[in-house]
Amino acid sequence: MNSSKPQWEQVGEAFVQHYYNTFDSSRSNLGPLYRENSMLTFEGEKYLGVQQIVGKLTALPFQKVQHQIVTCDCQPTQTQPSGILVFVNGNLLVDDSQNPLKFSQCFYLLPDSTNPASYWVHNDMFRLNYG
Amino acid sequence: MNSSKPQWEQVGEAFVQHYYNTFDSSRSNLGPLYRENSMLTFEGEKYLGVQQIVGKLTALPFQKVQHQIVTCDCQPTQTQPSGILVFVNGNLLVDDSQNPLKFSQCFYLLPDSTNPASYWVHNDMFRLNYG
Repeated sequence: MNSSKPQWEQVGEAFVQHYYNTFDSSRSNLGPLYRENSMLTFEGEKYLGVQQIVGKLTALPFQKVQHQIVTCDCQPTQTQPSGILVFVNGNLLVDDSQNPLKFSQCFYLLPDSTNPASYWVHNDMFRLNYG
Repeated sequence: MNSSKPQWEQVGEAFVQHYYNTFDSSRSNLGPLYRENSMLTFEGEKYLGVQQIVGKLTALPFQKVQHQIVTCDCQPTQTQPSGILVFVNGNLLVDDSQNPLKFSQCFYLLPDSTNPASYWVHNDMFRLNYG
């Protein structure tokens, strides 16, 4: 991690590394990153709260998955609380396919009110970019 | 506009129609949608405030441009003030090219403090998705 980067960029980049490592190894463990008012829009379908979101993610019909991050852009927001927008573009390798699918994903991270160094996913929007 | 849609979806969809219509007809007129603390990350390059942002957008090296929206996902945020995240995936036709470029763009809209029905662009992140 490059300490000359702004804090929100360090947080955002560390978050996506952790998020996709967890997703690709055991996506049922993503629950602690979401809360009851977290929102996921996955290919246009809407899910609210930990149970719906993790239910959707674990039901996705593949056994093996690998996210490759191509770009990761971060911006802070001047709201209360102040959050971090993280915008990822990358490749998705599913099961034994040799042809990566391109995806885009936008996360909005908010700090934990009792532990501001810890962030959770308030908003999550995912789309595959068909070629 | 479908009145059964939630308000944030109506606002987000109307915003992107207005934004890309303005961009494609006369992008120097995008200024009023941004403010001094607006942020743009365009293909990884960072711009802050109306002057830098509109300066970048008007300097883009094409004469004709057309954004085609393929998907537009919106989510509200439970911050103060409450904003709207808008996540667009689409095609970009530049000058006389017949080959659309795929793009993804994420906007974070905040309400005007004196006119809450009016929104401005606090955050804007844009990426081309090369095939």
